[in-house]
Amino acid sequence: MSGNTFGTLFTVTTAGESHGPALVAIVDGCPPGLPLTTADLQYDLDRRKPGTSRHTTQRQEPDEVEILSGVFEGITTGTPIGLLIRNTDQKSKDYSAIKDLFRPAHADYTYHHKYGVRDYRGGGRSSARETAMRVAAGAIAKKYLATQGIRIRGYMSQLGPIEIPFKTWDSVEQNAFFCPDPDKVPELEAYMDQLRRDQDSVGARITLVADGVPPGLGEPIFDRLDAELAYALMSVNAVKGVEIGAGFASIAQRGTEHRDELTPEGFLSNNAGGVLGGISSGQPVVAHLALKPTSSITTPGRSIDVAGNPVDVITKGRHDPCVGIRATPIAEAMMALVLMDHVLRHRAQNADVRVTTPILGQL
Amino acid sequence: MSGNTFGTLFTVTTAGESHGPALVAIVDGCPPGLPLTTADLQYDLDRRKPGTSRHTTQRQEPDEVEILSGVFEGITTGTPIGLLIRNTDQKSKDYSAIKDLFRPAHADYTYHHKYGVRDYRGGGRSSARETAMRVAAGAIAKKYLATQGIRIRGYMSQLGPIEIPFKTWDSVEQNAFFCPDPDKVPELEAYMDQLRRDQDSVGARITLVADGVPPGLGEPIFDRLDAELAYALMSVNAVKGVEIGAGFASIAQRGTEHRDELTPEGFLSNNAGGVLGGISSGQPVVAHLALKPTSSITTPGRSIDVAGNPVDVITKGRHDPCVGIRATPIAEAMMALVLMDHVLRHRAQNADVRVTTPILGQL
Amino acid sequence: MSGNTFGTLFTVTTAGESHGPALVAIVDGCPPGLPLTTADLQYDLDRRKPGTSRHTTQRQEPDEVEILSGVFEGITTGTPIGLLIRNTDQKSKDYSAIKDLFRPAHADYTYHHKYGVRDYRGGGRSSARETAMRVAAGAIAKKYLATQGIRIRGYMSQLGPIEIPFKTWDSVEQNAFFCPDPDKVPELEAYMDQLRRDQDSVGARITLVADGVPPGLGEPIFDRLDAELAYALMSVNAVKGVEIGAGFASIAQRGTEHRDELTPEGFLSNNAGGVLGGISSGQPVVAHLALKPTSSITTPGRSIDVAGNPVDVITKGRHDPCVGIRATPIAEAMMALVLMDHVLRHRAQNADVRVTTPILGQL
Amino acid sequence: MSGNTFGTLFTVTTAGESHGPALVAIVDGCPPGLPLTTADLQYDLDRRKPGTSRHTTQRQEPDEVEILSGVFEGITTGTPIGLLIRNTDQKSKDYSAIKDLFRPAHADYTYHHKYGVRDYRGGGRSSARETAMRVAAGAIAKKYLATQGIRIRGYMSQLGPIEIPFKTWDSVEQNAFFCPDPDKVPELEAYMDQLRRDQDSVGARITLVADGVPPGLGEPIFDRLDAELAYALMSVNAVKGVEIGAGFASIAQRGTEHRDELTPEGFLSNNAGGVLGGISSGQPVVAHLALKPTSSITTPGRSIDVAGNPVDVITKGRHDPCVGIRATPIAEAMMALVLMDHVLRHRAQNADVRVTTPILGQL
Repeated sequence: MSGNTFGTLFTVTTAGESHGPALVAIVDGCPPGLPLTTADLQYDLDRRKPGTSRHTTQRQEPDEVEILSGVFEGITTGTPIGLLIRNTDQKSKDYSAIKDLFRPAHADYTYHHKYGVRDYRGGGRSSARETAMRVAAGAIAKKYLATQGIRIRGYMSQLGPIEIPFKTWDSVEQNAFFCPDPDKVPELEAYMDQLRRDQDSVGARITLVADGVPPGLGEPIFDRLDAELAYALMSVNAVKGVEIGAGFASIAQRGTEHRDELTPEGFLSNNAGGVLGGISSGQPVVAHLALKPTSSITTPGRSIDVAGNPVDVITKGRHDPCVGIRATPIAEAMMALVLMDHVLRHRAQNADVRVTTPILGQL
Repeated sequence: MSGNTFGTLFTVTTAGESHGPALVAIVDGCPPGLPLTTADLQYDLDRRKPGTSRHTTQRQEPDEVEILSGVFEGITTGTPIGLLIRNTDQKSKDYSAIKDLFRPAHADYTYHHKYGVRDYRGGGRSSARETAMRVAAGAIAKKYLATQGIRIRGYMSQLGPIEIPFKTWDSVEQNAFFCPDPDKVPELEAYMDQLRRDQDSVGARITLVADGVPPGLGEPIFDRLDAELAYALMSVNAVKGVEIGAGFASIAQRGTEHRDELTPEGFLSNNAGGVLGGISSGQPVVAHLALKPTSSITTPGRSIDVAGNPVDVITKGRHDPCVGIRATPIAEAMMALVLMDHVLRHRAQNADVRVTTPILGQL
Repeated sequence: MSGNTFGTLFTVTTAGESHGPALVAIVDGCPPGLPLTTADLQYDLDRRKPGTSRHTTQRQEPDEVEILSGVFEGITTGTPIGLLIRNTDQKSKDYSAIKDLFRPAHADYTYHHKYGVRDYRGGGRSSARETAMRVAAGAIAKKYLATQGIRIRGYMSQLGPIEIPFKTWDSVEQNAFFCPDPDKVPELEAYMDQLRRDQDSVGARITLVADGVPPGLGEPIFDRLDAELAYALMSVNAVKGVEIGAGFASIAQRGTEHRDELTPEGFLSNNAGGVLGGISSGQPVVAHLALKPTSSITTPGRSIDVAGNPVDVITKGRHDPCVGIRATPIAEAMMALVLMDHVLRHRAQNADVRVTTPILGQL
Repeated sequence: MSGNTFGTLFTVTTAGESHGPALVAIVDGCPPGLPLTTADLQYDLDRRKPGTSRHTTQRQEPDEVEILSGVFEGITTGTPIGLLIRNTDQKSKDYSAIKDLFRPAHADYTYHHKYGVRDYRGGGRSSARETAMRVAAGAIAKKYLATQGIRIRGYMSQLGPIEIPFKTWDSVEQNAFFCPDPDKVPELEAYMDQLRRDQDSVGARITLVADGVPPGLGEPIFDRLDAELAYALMSVNAVKGVEIGAGFASIAQRGTEHRDELTPEGFLSNNAGGVLGGISSGQPVVAHLALKPTSSITTPGRSIDVAGNPVDVITKGRHDPCVGIRATPIAEAMMALVLMDHVLRHRAQNADVRVTTPILGQL
């Protein structure tokens, strides 16, 4: 495969550049019989879309998705689902300023060396604009997973230096940050306002939780559920780290502390993050991801041009000062794609397995 | 694919249980013409193998590998390379004690639910014993990568609470910990000795560095180099987190700090860890992984049996008190497999690309 | 993968139903730097499109393709190429007559059993309408292959009972049948006119020839070039048989007759069809395919409905009386996709191979 | 993938050369809970193995298979199954005579050009010896398919010029030819004896029938069941053609003749060979394959050496005068692998589909 297809049985193939005519995706492997309309996709697309608060890019994209195939009379047919989103706000600004140089921390330099030719307008294929299609495809997965009792949710657990302990899911959809604590929101807003004044950007941490995941998902030894999550989440723009459960905190833990003991009433803790030996345990699947600060900032930086000459770069235009703010729905979508794929993969080979051992939740 | 094949063009398929007759692997896609002998594989197998110090399991496995195919007169032929390692020290101990119960933090519970039937002897397929084949396959990749000027090395950067700043590669192969600072070794030994007396285990952090990686490796948007590294490294037993470059520290960084500026003399820093937009930049590729504490400890823990009844579990036998100690060659092998695969993938599609822009190293 | 993606490194994923809003495809893995415009795709689309003579369906589809991504300033960028063709002539006829019954020799019965739900309008996904996207994608492959000196051509070698010996390529594009002998065309026309009067349909045989294929393409032991061609060609609607070179005639051949002897001036024959041991030999690659008669005919046939009751079926509408007539560009496209994929696969692993043995053509 | 792995969910990866130390395979994706012993594999291995009659090669290989993993206490565990067959009769004959030249119709020339280096002993990887592993893996698939009511059988339907109409399955295992008509056997034996005296070889045709295949297997539009069968069967050494159902005879058929009408009592014919629109119909799946005459004959033939000089070649050694004689179990195995894979693939995505329409057999 050539890099733009995700998944084994539930596959998502995407195409499209930031400033090209459209984004397109083909979702293959969706089971037949699922009710599906554009409204199902639009909900998450709207959660991701730019321009909904002053803390994100002001590019205006309605991100209206069209279903081209695979759905008949409102029901999936088992044939591939074609999705189309037209780009509408590709500003006809002059890109000649960045055409022949490399913005620091962008993919300009690496695309140039890899492909020799690149669509430099707005980052082309390397722009986070492509994540719109991940979200649309993820929404299909989410809808199917819901029929299996699986729910995926995410929230911002850190913004720059500000840690955000989880308080309540009720808060998450009530603010522009996917912040799970309403009392923290003013602090986040103040921080972002100052950041804009500083002409700078900052990173963030997102936490994902999937509830209702049955035990058994994941295909060792390579396609472990945690390994596939790491792959999926690290493939999102700006992500520099992924943890499952206790993650890096496991390093300093002792075995007596880390191991999640089992009782007939349930697991006593969830340091594993719901994955043991690469297979879901029935506990909530928990992952964290680290997003780096946006590379597009107006503070000048040193760089070179294609000929190797030194230049100073300022990235103008409309950019998110913290890409992490809009990352929650994207990360949720990627987790949904992984779980969906593994529901199907598990079903293929283990359809006849029947164990009577109780499924444990977390106490 | 069913989970036991790694890679797209340079593929490694493995089989084998901890206490079965043998481990076996098929490495497909190795370019023809590479000189290869068992000695090339044995070097890393010996670095990984158990029983070389008092800080690892005392199971004695010579891990002697046989090349069954794909090599003719000492040269690879382009046909698949079959590898075989017989298990020799599967102690005939009585496993009936753990047959019907689930050791906390092990894969017992999840394998039971997924497959209904499992080889419970020594963890079966979920045992880290299977990593021997990863190391053997990785050694082939390493040898080929060396012909391309790429070198992969790793070291332990943290043992439990003890952080180990990098000092010198010269130290790494001189101690049982892959510790890059000879002065730290006594502290590590003392810690491990105390840990054993405590009948406990602990986690560790491994750092990997690949030098000589050319710009251009990685296939966005999903099969990014960093995403594939995350997948590969998270698939190793006990790994709970993966970082690229600055990793989780990126969260609190500002854009002006994180972005690696470019000058004609080279990049000024390497927060990116050598990957931009999912493609190698020509800088060293740097990854970190977190390993959890070993689950097999002799301090009793609460659990249940297959009928759901509460039991107390003690894991006897021969186990590593810190799986991280032997993890460095395994992690190196996985990075080698990823880079090897991406060298081939990049070559396939971009063979004709010729750019004159200079390749930058790190200052 | 879920069945709608073709290829390993040069992949084509398609979606779209006969009477849905559009056909869509994503072509991934095209090397960067290839000049490409919609005109390059339109040439073959026009060769395939319906309604160009009285011998094919009268459905009017301009089959105008839009390139959505992957091409910048007329040059491929190495990123995936999105393709879109809107359906324009989905007649709003009443399909209730066929909604609940199964047309003999159609996919109605099997789609019903597989998916439970199906888009019955015009055959839905099982319609040959989807081959438009194969042709568009194949045109990209053809264009790249031409830069490597590889040319793919096809012709009709049999129409129903009428065998058509090859005479000249010059004739092939000069008639509605892709017939390589202009003197045969009146006979074919008369046969088709009678067939229409008989309200019946008939099969056909297509022959494909690829010139300029270098030795070395094909990946034994499973992904042999001939095996991949068989897969690709058998995946085309209505195809019931595939031969390479002498094909079924090999059965009665003796070894002394079949083997293609080699001389310094070239091979003395081409019974192998340009493939030995699954790898191209440098001779022309030759394949033949058999297409069954169209299933949609107006002569009544016995069938059942979804409840299992007997019914009589007449397939009205606009249909090809011989699907083989339009099959040549489709078959060429599939051969192009296979060769393109194998050019890339071969390049990945054998980039360093240099042999001085001469490449032989055919005498 | 690099060519030596077959399948999507039930995958078989093989390695091994004709005169290397061993053949090895890894079968991944076998559902857990299947009773499996080496005896299950040995039955078909013995049917394929050489030296069982005077009409096949006299190489003596017991082909004893060892199961290295994936089976515990006689039951598959869902983990990959490693298989090993040691080569025992690699005669230490001098291969220097063929080392630097290309035997006509062999893979020598193409392997040389592709890989630059090759194991020339007995054909190396291109030898039909590798099919032993296909047979072993196929036996696992057959055993599982039997639990689903699916049975795969094959027979020789033509030997050189002698057509063999099907008479009875009872005869097939009673003679060296897999001939379904006991009265034909003397004619076949006489033909083969004369052929040996002529120092020549001949082709054959094999017919495969799978009974009990449920409707619904196959994944359009590319991974159709017939397309996958064509791929699988064409990947077998010496195969030059594949047909499904009426195959090439479909060309001259009219639609009224070809279409298999349906009645409540069943289909009235099976020109489709059990596949409609790429999906199994519930009728028997029928395929035919054409095998070319053996290339290894002692009648001298013209060729060239690696330097391009003309040479005369005689292929000495132990060879089958008709590779088709031993091909039946190999072809059965490939059909089993395809059906097995598609049983799993179908199950993954269509587990919830429930239709009440009756499943039709053939009248």
